[in-house]
This record gives sequence, structure tokens and C-alpha cells, in this order.
Amino acid sequence: MIHMMSPALRFDVLSLFPKSVDGFAEESILGKAVDQGLIEINSLDLRRWAEGKHRETDDRPFGGGAGMVLKPQPIFDAIEEISTEHTQVIYATPDGEPFTSDIAKELSGETHLVFLSGHYEGIDQRVRDHVVHREISIGDYVITNGTLASVVMIDAISRHIPGVLGDPESLENESFESNRLSHPQYTRPHDFRGMKVPEVLLSGNHKDISHWRENQRKIKTELIRPDLLKANTQT
Amino acid sequence: MIHMMSPALRFDVLSLFPKSVDGFAEESILGKAVDQGLIEINSLDLRRWAEGKHRETDDRPFGGGAGMVLKPQPIFDAIEEISTEHTQVIYATPDGEPFTSDIAKELSGETHLVFLSGHYEGIDQRVRDHVVHREISIGDYVITNGTLASVVMIDAISRHIPGVLGDPESLENESFESNRLSHPQYTRPHDFRGMKVPEVLLSGNHKDISHWRENQRKIKTELIRPDLLKANTQT
Repeated sequence: MIHMMSPALRFDVLSLFPKSVDGFAEESILGKAVDQGLIEINSLDLRRWAEGKHRETDDRPFGGGAGMVLKPQPIFDAIEEISTEHTQVIYATPDGEPFTSDIAKELSGETHLVFLSGHYEGIDQRVRDHVVHREISIGDYVITNGTLASVVMIDAISRHIPGVLGDPESLENESFESNRLSHPQYTRPHDFRGMKVPEVLLSGNHKDISHWRENQRKIKTELIRPDLLKANTQT
Repeated sequence: MIHMMSPALRFDVLSLFPKSVDGFAEESILGKAVDQGLIEINSLDLRRWAEGKHRETDDRPFGGGAGMVLKPQPIFDAIEEISTEHTQVIYATPDGEPFTSDIAKELSGETHLVFLSGHYEGIDQRVRDHVVHREISIGDYVITNGTLASVVMIDAISRHIPGVLGDPESLENESFESNRLSHPQYTRPHDFRGMKVPEVLLSGNHKDISHWRENQRKIKTELIRPDLLKANTQT
């Protein structure tokens, strides 16, 4: 009777491009979690809260410069209308704290997250100072469609909600668990055009397999992301 | 006559969830760039290349463990069919090198990028060893829908292609340029519910405004991302 329960976590995405969200909220694991009532994803059009004849959501920046800036009024009004006592407002922005698996896990314990994002433009600083609880960056790069960053975080957060991933074991050996990258994976055929699967994986010896995988994770992490191993010894 | 020219960069996204891409490729700046013929984005269903009665694209991992692994055959066949002399195959994966603005700029000079991604599952290591040119991670977290990571990179890369952003000045003061985060932005009204815009931005004095913004960028970067300033002095 899972449909009768309220979802563990409700996501509201406030943006100028609400349709972008739908493709992702309908397909794959995320779509299944929505269907099962485990999460709720609402894509809200910021224009709904814009005042004035032209319902404008942005305007030119004070002090000059390229691009447009999202106005404070529509966002303040939207957040006031949709917020509850437990709402956390997240602003997806390249100048926020870097998003990590740990933050994803932490946010999966919330009940209502509102995602805000700029687009090729900024957002009025007064929104950031007075409405936003947390500013998070999905990486050290800039994208034109900030809604994408919101969806990335929603995906990463949702998978930590019990029931969303069919097999909770999936979370155990993945990248960033214990600050290690994941090990190589192989599937059939064991000989593909002369390229063969490592013998140990066909051995049936679980101890050897586990040892090989752990070693591979260590080697790969040392090679590609030595910074993760350093983080490991510091905690 | 821009429609008569071939696009500067063609993106092929090979995935199990081709519909996810469309919402983003149709809207916003990315959609406009496609309409103008500056870029081309093709969303390809990996199942098209799957052999056998059930056209299966994945199978259980050798050596055991949770999840499924994408089989080598459909991917090898797809890449062979769509590749040209100048194709670069990018695998979007959390255990790749971290994606940055610099990599986005670099890849914007290519002519054909193929994006591959796993989903809640891995990809056969033989694909990574023999077909993939570059493995890139969009951040230190895991998402269920790897296609999202491909779209994030396509967005970040496209905005460096001449003509995609209407105003090239937009690229100048953004986050990560000169290893600094961006400065605060304000727009009208200058007094919103008693919250006021900093006086300097209303002064009309371009030198003062520029000085204030540079100082704000420095303060914010020191506070939130001191690691970026460190990177700056090393290069």
C-alpha cells in the first residue's frame, strides 16, 4: 500500500525551464521512485509568481555587465507560498560548496527540498542572503541551464532513500565509498574478440575476487584521484 | 545562411534512456544553439545495436556483486558504426578525471564527441580499455542516470562555441575564470522590502564598481573555495 503513504521526500524545482525536468523525472530509476510514491518531484514555473504586465522574471544587473539577473520578487513570493516548517531551500550555483556523496546522503534525510537555479544569468543576492539555506555546486564548471544541476542533485539524493535502489548492496562498492573509486566490471562473453576477462573473476573464489577488487580500487584511486586517499587518512 | 553550414560540433549520446536528453536539447540556450545549426545533438538508443532474440544490453557481473554491467558487443558495434576519423569517445563516470571549465573549453574545439554512460550499473572494462578516449567525472557523487552527466558536459562545452552565448562577455566574469568565484549580482528594485542594493553599484563609477566586484570575488573565493586560490598561485 505504498501509494497511500506520503513520499519520504518532496522535491520542488523552481525554474524558467520546467519542461527540462520532466524527461528525467519520468524515466529510469527516478521515474520508478516517483511511481512507487517514494519521492515526489514537482517542476514549477517561476513565471507563475512574476508580477506586472509582462510577468518578467529577470532584469539587467545594477552596476552594468553582461547577462540578466533573476529578480527577487517572484522568488521570494514563490518560496513563501510553497515553504513548510521543514523546507530547505537549495541554490544550485557554481560558487557554492562542492556537492559530494556525503551531502547527498545528508539531504536524503530531509522531507522537503526546494531547488532554485540561475540560468545563463545570476540571481539577485538578496535571495541568496535571505531565502536560501544552502548554496551547492555540482562541479568546477559553468552550465547554461541551472535546472540540470538541480536534477543531478535530486538523482544523487534520491538513491539514498530506502527502496529507491532495488538492491541496497549497490551502494556499497561504488565510487567514493571509503574514499575509493570503484573496481573494474566485466560481463559476458568472457572472450570478446580475443579480449578476455581476468581469470580471477571466473575462479569462483570469493576471497580472491574480493582481494583483487579491493586492490584494483586502490590502484585506480592512486592513479586517477590520489586526493581521495589523502582525504581518507585525514578523517 | 548559418543553416547551410555543418555544425561546429556534433554530439552523439549513446544511452538506454534516449528520451532524457530531448527535454534539455530542445529548451533554453542549448535548444537555441541546435536551432541555429551551431551544434547537433543526437540521442541514440543503445538497444539498436544489441544482438540476439532479446536485444539485451546488460548482463550480470563476472565474479558476482550487485547490479548489472553493460555488455561490450552493443557498444563496440555502435561506436564502430558512428565513428569518423576525428571522433572522441567520452565515458561519463564517477571514477574518471574531474570535469572542469578548462576541459569544457578544450573539448569545444573538437568536431565529434560521442558520450557513453553507465546507469545504475557499470560498463564492461573492455569498452573502457579499447573504445573510450577519455573518462570524465562531473563530480564526487554517484547518479543513477548517467545520461544526465553527458548532458551536463554537453551544456558546459557548448557555451564555449562561438555564437552559442549571445554575449561573449558573459564568459569573462563567471566562476572559475582566473580561479575566482563570481561576484554578487543585484537587479531592480534597488529597495526590496527594505533590503537594499550596495550603494557602489548605483554610483555609475565604473572603476569603483569594478574594484568592488573584484574584491567580492576574492573574499567569496577565500571563504568558500580557498583551494581555487591555491591552484592560482601554482600555475
